[in-house]
Amino acid sequence: MSYFPDVPDRIPYEGPDSKNPLAYRHYNPAELVEGKSMADHLRFAVCYWHTFRGTGSDPFGPGCAIRPWEDGTDSLDMALKRVDVAFEFMQKLGVPFYCFHDRDVAPEGKTLADSNKNLDAVAKKLGQKQKETGIKLLWGTANLFSNKRFVHGASTSSNADVFAYSAAQVKKALEVTKELGGENYVFWGGREGYMTLWNTDLKRELDHLARFFHMAVDYKRKIGFTGAFLIEPKPHEPTSHQYDFDCANSHAFLRTYGLEKEFKFNVETNHATLAKHTMGHELAYAAANGMLGSVDANRGDPLLGWDTDQFPTDLYLTAQSMLIILAAGGLGAGGLNFDAKVRRESFEPIDLFHAHVGSMDAFAQGLKIAAAIRKDGVLADVVKKRYATWDAGVGAEIEAGKHDFASLEAYMLKKGDADANVSGRQELIENILNRYIR
Amino acid sequence: MSYFPDVPDRIPYEGPDSKNPLAYRHYNPAELVEGKSMADHLRFAVCYWHTFRGTGSDPFGPGCAIRPWEDGTDSLDMALKRVDVAFEFMQKLGVPFYCFHDRDVAPEGKTLADSNKNLDAVAKKLGQKQKETGIKLLWGTANLFSNKRFVHGASTSSNADVFAYSAAQVKKALEVTKELGGENYVFWGGREGYMTLWNTDLKRELDHLARFFHMAVDYKRKIGFTGAFLIEPKPHEPTSHQYDFDCANSHAFLRTYGLEKEFKFNVETNHATLAKHTMGHELAYAAANGMLGSVDANRGDPLLGWDTDQFPTDLYLTAQSMLIILAAGGLGAGGLNFDAKVRRESFEPIDLFHAHVGSMDAFAQGLKIAAAIRKDGVLADVVKKRYATWDAGVGAEIEAGKHDFASLEAYMLKKGDADANVSGRQELIENILNRYIR
Amino acid sequence: MSYFPDVPDRIPYEGPDSKNPLAYRHYNPAELVEGKSMADHLRFAVCYWHTFRGTGSDPFGPGCAIRPWEDGTDSLDMALKRVDVAFEFMQKLGVPFYCFHDRDVAPEGKTLADSNKNLDAVAKKLGQKQKETGIKLLWGTANLFSNKRFVHGASTSSNADVFAYSAAQVKKALEVTKELGGENYVFWGGREGYMTLWNTDLKRELDHLARFFHMAVDYKRKIGFTGAFLIEPKPHEPTSHQYDFDCANSHAFLRTYGLEKEFKFNVETNHATLAKHTMGHELAYAAANGMLGSVDANRGDPLLGWDTDQFPTDLYLTAQSMLIILAAGGLGAGGLNFDAKVRRESFEPIDLFHAHVGSMDAFAQGLKIAAAIRKDGVLADVVKKRYATWDAGVGAEIEAGKHDFASLEAYMLKKGDADANVSGRQELIENILNRYIR
Amino acid sequence: MSYFPDVPDRIPYEGPDSKNPLAYRHYNPAELVEGKSMADHLRFAVCYWHTFRGTGSDPFGPGCAIRPWEDGTDSLDMALKRVDVAFEFMQKLGVPFYCFHDRDVAPEGKTLADSNKNLDAVAKKLGQKQKETGIKLLWGTANLFSNKRFVHGASTSSNADVFAYSAAQVKKALEVTKELGGENYVFWGGREGYMTLWNTDLKRELDHLARFFHMAVDYKRKIGFTGAFLIEPKPHEPTSHQYDFDCANSHAFLRTYGLEKEFKFNVETNHATLAKHTMGHELAYAAANGMLGSVDANRGDPLLGWDTDQFPTDLYLTAQSMLIILAAGGLGAGGLNFDAKVRRESFEPIDLFHAHVGSMDAFAQGLKIAAAIRKDGVLADVVKKRYATWDAGVGAEIEAGKHDFASLEAYMLKKGDADANVSGRQELIENILNRYIR
Repeated sequence: MSYFPDVPDRIPYEGPDSKNPLAYRHYNPAELVEGKSMADHLRFAVCYWHTFRGTGSDPFGPGCAIRPWEDGTDSLDMALKRVDVAFEFMQKLGVPFYCFHDRDVAPEGKTLADSNKNLDAVAKKLGQKQKETGIKLLWGTANLFSNKRFVHGASTSSNADVFAYSAAQVKKALEVTKELGGENYVFWGGREGYMTLWNTDLKRELDHLARFFHMAVDYKRKIGFTGAFLIEPKPHEPTSHQYDFDCANSHAFLRTYGLEKEFKFNVETNHATLAKHTMGHELAYAAANGMLGSVDANRGDPLLGWDTDQFPTDLYLTAQSMLIILAAGGLGAGGLNFDAKVRRESFEPIDLFHAHVGSMDAFAQGLKIAAAIRKDGVLADVVKKRYATWDAGVGAEIEAGKHDFASLEAYMLKKGDADANVSGRQELIENILNRYIR
Repeated sequence: MSYFPDVPDRIPYEGPDSKNPLAYRHYNPAELVEGKSMADHLRFAVCYWHTFRGTGSDPFGPGCAIRPWEDGTDSLDMALKRVDVAFEFMQKLGVPFYCFHDRDVAPEGKTLADSNKNLDAVAKKLGQKQKETGIKLLWGTANLFSNKRFVHGASTSSNADVFAYSAAQVKKALEVTKELGGENYVFWGGREGYMTLWNTDLKRELDHLARFFHMAVDYKRKIGFTGAFLIEPKPHEPTSHQYDFDCANSHAFLRTYGLEKEFKFNVETNHATLAKHTMGHELAYAAANGMLGSVDANRGDPLLGWDTDQFPTDLYLTAQSMLIILAAGGLGAGGLNFDAKVRRESFEPIDLFHAHVGSMDAFAQGLKIAAAIRKDGVLADVVKKRYATWDAGVGAEIEAGKHDFASLEAYMLKKGDADANVSGRQELIENILNRYIR
Repeated sequence: MSYFPDVPDRIPYEGPDSKNPLAYRHYNPAELVEGKSMADHLRFAVCYWHTFRGTGSDPFGPGCAIRPWEDGTDSLDMALKRVDVAFEFMQKLGVPFYCFHDRDVAPEGKTLADSNKNLDAVAKKLGQKQKETGIKLLWGTANLFSNKRFVHGASTSSNADVFAYSAAQVKKALEVTKELGGENYVFWGGREGYMTLWNTDLKRELDHLARFFHMAVDYKRKIGFTGAFLIEPKPHEPTSHQYDFDCANSHAFLRTYGLEKEFKFNVETNHATLAKHTMGHELAYAAANGMLGSVDANRGDPLLGWDTDQFPTDLYLTAQSMLIILAAGGLGAGGLNFDAKVRRESFEPIDLFHAHVGSMDAFAQGLKIAAAIRKDGVLADVVKKRYATWDAGVGAEIEAGKHDFASLEAYMLKKGDADANVSGRQELIENILNRYIR
Repeated sequence: MSYFPDVPDRIPYEGPDSKNPLAYRHYNPAELVEGKSMADHLRFAVCYWHTFRGTGSDPFGPGCAIRPWEDGTDSLDMALKRVDVAFEFMQKLGVPFYCFHDRDVAPEGKTLADSNKNLDAVAKKLGQKQKETGIKLLWGTANLFSNKRFVHGASTSSNADVFAYSAAQVKKALEVTKELGGENYVFWGGREGYMTLWNTDLKRELDHLARFFHMAVDYKRKIGFTGAFLIEPKPHEPTSHQYDFDCANSHAFLRTYGLEKEFKFNVETNHATLAKHTMGHELAYAAANGMLGSVDANRGDPLLGWDTDQFPTDLYLTAQSMLIILAAGGLGAGGLNFDAKVRRESFEPIDLFHAHVGSMDAFAQGLKIAAAIRKDGVLADVVKKRYATWDAGVGAEIEAGKHDFASLEAYMLKKGDADANVSGRQELIENILNRYIR
């Protein structure tokens, strides 16, 4: 039986001129780009929560998504059936990976033990389907924010019991992630932050967060989980101020508590822009610090101040993202996870396909654009030329550690003033980019 | 001769009921608060650039400030005369400190040597006036952003010569700051950032910035300057993205390059809010990391996206700032520097007095409010009670390092779920605050 | 039986020095200010939706509010019981008014007829309780956004049937509002807007909106409803762009379609700031155009980009709001409706009292501050003096219509240039304000 | 003699595959699109202020632009020489139009009479060059914001003399615009707004603004100027709140004062986004109200809160703009004026060419994309289908005015609920768009 009877068994690749909305125009998984297959470059993942648990609810109305397979319950049976839906969807789409929160795939029970049992039951089926289809788990994580127990945070809750509960829940989620061959484990700080500084002991909460991460690292070693630990920064929402504000903030935190070698970042586009960074900046920052782990591929609305989690189709965004990723040597064990949701107004099942097909294509095209830019070397030349003064003379000496304030003062007193600058050529560069957006 | 003939020799303290706009209603320098004089708590400083060099120019029009003492030149003579103006102003105001950039106090010459000579000449007079008046230098800094040579940055310029020039300029500014007894030296990253990532080698520029700071630390040691080094974060403007985005970002940078013990932060209100943090957050973050150095006291307009540098008069802001500062044990060698400018529309000399008097009063009142809140202990009690579960039982054990994921799982499996939470009481706290805003 | 057993029958007024969190320090209903009672100036209203239907749910978690009287259903019985809760709450608080959406007070039925029947049943009880307690209905409105039928809007839906449904629903809501003696009827444009311009016929949707409003006006006349019609502008959320963006936008719409004499505005603080206006601006704009109808009193978080609907306690906000309202001659048939919700973290019933008590007090204090400012006339004098050139000479002539471009050119050619300006004195004014914030 | 010796006499069209940075890849002036030449569709204009008077100054440093022809003075001789530079630039670029402010082209004199004389002298030369080259004046305007006399605004100044001066200045600017055959006259409200509501009589200032516009309309008629009057909205900057906030706000103002038939809008991209609208929205709003006059083509940085006035190269922006413009029947007497400035870092003369060439190409490509989308009809079909319920049955009846609340209630009571909605298909539409961005 099929849950998406109108969609062919596999969305085909039909090339750039196709007008078939259910075909890829650019994503051709086996096609080689810079000697590696598109599939291996892009490592697309479907997210379980938005795609299979999203209902279209928003603060002004309940869900309105039409999902004929849902029976309206949060039962274990429904959870097991939903696994079939998910794997049919992912197979038809042709994505190699998926991601989940524990509470997306399995219902919360009355006690922790019940919840664990539910999770085990679903995980068993997920494992079977993975085996059957070859689809793999990019990362798992634990939902430490929806249940009312997390109202004041999880590891940063003012209630110590909630820290304990969170520890137990993450322990289980880690075990399940390992069992399912997850290549990473993600920490998104849900309600780790504060609503008002007036009732908050910032330092104490940060200490607790660090304690929690150290416990997680210890447990990871104990069970031999070899996937990467990833922090997903976000500046605000649901709290007024999240502790993992952006990559740099999280980086400072990790270094302060001696954790910087244990974590990388899962960078999300919409979170970047809410923190007033471009996605390019966050990717470049993570890469510059050797901490680029994975990507939550979506986009925000630059005029709106909340996390809209839209599907990404802007080619300027995908091209720049892929350029930085290629320059960083690729995503390694990470991937491009569509942490994106169809608009509430796009409530039909077929919209889920449109959304993923278009965004996968936009990234595939972005990859091709990035590779073309790299091949031509035009942009790289502009940058190299800009920094030419650092490759010889006083610049090279400074980089080599041969100067101090006194020697540089002597150099400049003799010279009188610095050599003239050259234009940064931003407009020319933007024009060159437009040669490739096609 | 007087430059402000209509202003009395010293702005008097007349108490809360005064209606004299040129009197303090709250700032009573010798009055003790928590056993320390207001003057010592607040350590007010006037900034030379806005107050004595500001003209009211903006992107849509040139300056329109009426400054009868100015002769329209940027000559050395004018610079020397301006020192008299400044010290008359500060004496009348009764502030104990001032701050400057090298190029505010002395004109730039045709060569570095000329500029240094000009700076020496003015510094000599500044020293004399300091001695005469008892007014001290809170901090000095170098302007590494106005001259066209800094168009691509200073230590992060794509032009290595500009790095060399900046080194020489900071060397001199450090020497002059030491000579004048400056208690700190500030690094604000002017154009250290990028306009577009497309033409920028982020990693290389950050490496240069770190190299520069290491040279500065070395030189500080060499000359025996004992003041603190302070970084002043700012997220944007003039560049699209400044390297010292916020305290956390700068903190990460300092730790990455082994500089975290050498620097503290000069936290600015308007920079905090442009980075989407409250001033309270940035102060609390700096304090929690032992890096609260000094404060640039101003405010932004929450509806405008640029650095408006307005004078701060909001009592909620000043009370919260002072509460965090008192909790951190005070500002130490730092102070409250009014990095604020009168509105372009407030172009008469007397407006400079109104602006400083009102803001000094707002901070003095904020200090009294903060002390009253601390004395009553009401807010502190709310916070303490919120975290009570961490002071005993499993919370205390976690803090003591007696738990790991396995032991906490065992604890929670047995318990079933966490104990119930209690309300965060934000509304009550906000009501309590209003009891003190008076 | 009591639903709030720990709260006395009436929150007492205890004066400014009270430390009783369940007492008013400023709101003394019968106290005269400018010859009118505080109660008549402020006309406080409790909103039914946030206060009695809010659960604390947000996009990251379901509700967690403790409401012991709720049985977990959306039944008619529960709706009737909830009326008792609401009136106990409002009586204890001592507010004279409340506001509701049709679907807040009564459950939606399977058909329109069922829904109407439910509404009638609850309205009957509301009417009885109004009679018993003297509490009155400030305004009613219809919820045209929660049900999935409104996914594309109500009167601006792409589905004509939804327009028809909305017409029927508003017809009923108007009738019920009239029946309950409602003094106004509010139109908040829920999902009247668009998510993406790409699928939207802007002009056609605006025409439909105007058609709808004309029908409402006709029906109002037909049934003899004499309350005011109020539009509540909001720029974004839930849609990407709401048609009633701000007061000026709505004003343009009303005038374009010949509706400007039929509507006033219900101005909301958080909506104002999301549209990049201060609340003061929106109030002053509405007042200047004779369209100030009523106020949704709350506040946003200036660093967050969504509608946080927080309770307002900032005295600068309440003082400025009351100054503009007093200058406009008061709110007339409008009032101050707390369209505000307790934080999700403030989930105990008592927090509802803290929230309202503190905000009512903040407005009462704001009223007293505003009256004091008006009595002293200091600020009014500053403004009057600023415009003195318009009260005589060429200014008065211009205002009297005695000039044109040619005569003014002749005047100015003779004079050469305009007389000099005087300072705007913004800093002085801000200092003066602080004299009154106490 | 040539001011741009390295640039050929005319930037050639070389087709999409050209890699020549000084060639057009898409802008082929005579090429027909929908039966009209590209030149006639796009009506490109160069702006005099940014392109010939911009220096690269910003709030943190003076100008650094290399302009070899400038002698450092604001003399009349320099102004006349600059006309030669401008026309060489525009001829080489091949643009048919330019725009200016009076004070950009000619220096301000000591008196109004002197200023007028200077303007006449330059206008004479402008007229000669127009004749020689065939380049025309798209619009003129008056700079009513730079001179210190405008510190409190022009027609909304608190100083009545400034109103008079402004009237005289606009009179002259109108005359010169007429003399030079200007096809429009633009009013951008410079400092028409307020810095703080506390010192402002909003209503009185708006009355003055309306008075001023009425005088302008009268004078336009008197001298027989037949060009369009255009208002250019902007929300903030330099003032905290500009009176012409956005198109809707200005529209309300015009209608309130009976001016709506006399003005259209000059819509600017960066101003739109600062007011939290997309450019598409502002264009569509203006078009829907028959008030689309002209376009200031630029772009902002969505992460920065000030007017960055960048050159527009984003094809999504240009395609959407051209789609709306084509749907509105074209720009009429308006045009696409590049109110954009090269980055401060792009300080070489050649950057002016890169900037214009790239943006002209981006709009030419946008035009071709828009025409292709229109030809295929795919998007139009999606929209038409969305509103199908309005083309028959109850929808058509409502539009025809055949219904009221009572009849619609009867209709819906019988039906029970509205027919089901269909998906808004936003994701599919975004995918379709990407088929054309090439």
